[in-house]
Amino acid sequence: MTTDFGTRDAYVAQMKGVLYAQGPNDIDLVDLTHDIGAQQVIEAALFVKAAWPRFPKGTVHMVIVDPGVGSERRALACEQAGQYFVGPDNGVMSLLFDRDMQAVSLQPERFVAADISATFHGRDVFAPAAARLAQGAKLSELGDAASDLVQIEWPPLTVSRSELRGEVLHVDRFGNLISNVSRAALAQWLAPSEWSRLRVRIASSTDSPLARSAHFDGLPILRTYADAGFGKAAALIGSSEVLEIAVTNGNAATSLGVGVGTAVVLDFADGASHG
Amino acid sequence: MTTDFGTRDAYVAQMKGVLYAQGPNDIDLVDLTHDIGAQQVIEAALFVKAAWPRFPKGTVHMVIVDPGVGSERRALACEQAGQYFVGPDNGVMSLLFDRDMQAVSLQPERFVAADISATFHGRDVFAPAAARLAQGAKLSELGDAASDLVQIEWPPLTVSRSELRGEVLHVDRFGNLISNVSRAALAQWLAPSEWSRLRVRIASSTDSPLARSAHFDGLPILRTYADAGFGKAAALIGSSEVLEIAVTNGNAATSLGVGVGTAVVLDFADGASHG
Amino acid sequence: MTTDFGTRDAYVAQMKGVLYAQGPNDIDLVDLTHDIGAQQVIEAALFVKAAWPRFPKGTVHMVIVDPGVGSERRALACEQAGQYFVGPDNGVMSLLFDRDMQAVSLQPERFVAADISATFHGRDVFAPAAARLAQGAKLSELGDAASDLVQIEWPPLTVSRSELRGEVLHVDRFGNLISNVSRAALAQWLAPSEWSRLRVRIASSTDSPLARSAHFDGLPILRTYADAGFGKAAALIGSSEVLEIAVTNGNAATSLGVGVGTAVVLDFADGASHG
Repeated sequence: MTTDFGTRDAYVAQMKGVLYAQGPNDIDLVDLTHDIGAQQVIEAALFVKAAWPRFPKGTVHMVIVDPGVGSERRALACEQAGQYFVGPDNGVMSLLFDRDMQAVSLQPERFVAADISATFHGRDVFAPAAARLAQGAKLSELGDAASDLVQIEWPPLTVSRSELRGEVLHVDRFGNLISNVSRAALAQWLAPSEWSRLRVRIASSTDSPLARSAHFDGLPILRTYADAGFGKAAALIGSSEVLEIAVTNGNAATSLGVGVGTAVVLDFADGASHG
Repeated sequence: MTTDFGTRDAYVAQMKGVLYAQGPNDIDLVDLTHDIGAQQVIEAALFVKAAWPRFPKGTVHMVIVDPGVGSERRALACEQAGQYFVGPDNGVMSLLFDRDMQAVSLQPERFVAADISATFHGRDVFAPAAARLAQGAKLSELGDAASDLVQIEWPPLTVSRSELRGEVLHVDRFGNLISNVSRAALAQWLAPSEWSRLRVRIASSTDSPLARSAHFDGLPILRTYADAGFGKAAALIGSSEVLEIAVTNGNAATSLGVGVGTAVVLDFADGASHG
Repeated sequence: MTTDFGTRDAYVAQMKGVLYAQGPNDIDLVDLTHDIGAQQVIEAALFVKAAWPRFPKGTVHMVIVDPGVGSERRALACEQAGQYFVGPDNGVMSLLFDRDMQAVSLQPERFVAADISATFHGRDVFAPAAARLAQGAKLSELGDAASDLVQIEWPPLTVSRSELRGEVLHVDRFGNLISNVSRAALAQWLAPSEWSRLRVRIASSTDSPLARSAHFDGLPILRTYADAGFGKAAALIGSSEVLEIAVTNGNAATSLGVGVGTAVVLDFADGASHG
């Protein structure tokens, strides 16, 4: 369960009740997070993208962020690599999967007996649908094939011969800056054997030696945080297979004065251009 | 499990250990929340009231808020509609259930071998009792019938011919204002077919156009948030079957300057009185 | 699972995926906390020390705080009293257990097929190891016997004939001050029957009557918080078997102006010395 509901309110608790009451007896209910920022669709997609491939086949993911309650927005169930995803048609699915994924628009009258609340689809549509999928129901039993899902794009990279430009997508709890520069995109631009020639430059709103150095001199791309040395900033391809910027034993976001949306620029330390 | 313990301390972790060690092998342990405000009995009752009816028969709810550790306060176990509730006799049970519910005063010497800690009933009394109930024990095995439970009342409504007056009980994570005006109480005062004649007025500590409008002109009662239009305030009967005030795609609590305890007044938009 | 990862990021979610994918079918995954302060090894040890003895034999605890990612730090699995503990060799194990505990240094090539990420041992080493232990693997299948674990000591007590001096180790959610003065250490210094002669004095950064009294007059050692009377400060041996200082129906940390590291001094109320 990945939601933006938090746990101070009873919303998640009600959904859990429905899952236990309507799901299979041996259901395993797993909290992934309820702390996605309210209505932050990109943040939710980034979270689920990192987590879902680790789960076994048959897992049902509830990804309920910004459900646009009571609006015309469709309720979706999707299947990818043997796992299921239910949630509102808010663009998260398009960020996670290709256009050719299997998706249905949920028809609650097919699997819910009672009247549908106008205000809480998480409890009254998505939880019953997830319970049915956990019991082995097929997508086609829950709704009609859906196409033309709402499309959102990850913020794009800008590439030229002399530089590759991305941005910070997420700041994690330790202050590490997670960018939209994937290992694959970077390798497509420049062979990994050449990465030692690159430097990573980030704008900074803080005027400290560390920040100035990150801005003007740029950071090397290392293999692990520990290679940077205590208190130093560095860039590396992190555990989510994207470029991260970190300060060893420190907080990159606060010490560099950087947040979501800040530009991340890779160019050649020697001023060369590419190819 | 619904507590005010938070998760930074080991209190909840110790209770979980006891439940796994003493409960049935196939126990499903579900976190509902540990974020109830410290000692907020009304908030806890509101939370559990929304959640418990969704759970299946046989569920054991631990509702441990403000346990009044070491005091004379009794430890209770109650049964309602095939579900069980354990917690201190602090009034939560009276907010949730009628006086004629089945309740016992827990006698730990009947189900706990070790000495009882003087400071942590959650771990040493309530968790073992919940473990026994999860294994199928009857209330009567755990204690003696209890009556005269501590009684707390929900903040009452004030009704006259011209207005119905309640208050804000809870502000949810999205800033929605949850009132104590239930659908049933409102319908008893005025037939639902007439609700379109009503306006909902709330005091506001903020001097914005939105706040002034909510205060002086009042808000209509709509069917869904989306009907209000972007950035507009509206009232509706929410998913918990009580009147809520929300700002579409916004935060009603901050934009109206309203918190728990603020009066919510329903009267007739045309100045009429009732009946 | 006890970590300092928080739940806003996908780190814990990825570990859960691995545990479900690689662990036994009937695995019970339990969140103890993900809110340990970043890299706070002492806080993590205090948490786990309170919680682990409550769990049944066969439990696998993941205690992953400050993993020193990518460094030379070893990955450990330990066994104590039929329970298992996996985590980095950061001193937590030495705070929890005697030197003669069984421990191995994890050799991931023995139980992980895929390449090991350089940046996230929690997901790529510790979670697979825990999954194997949950399936009944022996320590010796996962690595080689390890000795010379990193040693950290709890902050020591200073004792003389006239006083015993400890400090505040932790402030809990209710503002209670948890010290490093254990019931056993205190009993070794002075027989429990004599404790009524003692007073507990704590330095305070706040100049209120309550704080002055706690500083100069000292607090009695009571049996329960309720014995102190409403709004009064008191000391007692808490549910974790160590000396705590609390303010009944209040917050000791804020009203006394006290935090982690503050000295806690026990001496004789009548100025006597010991023995």
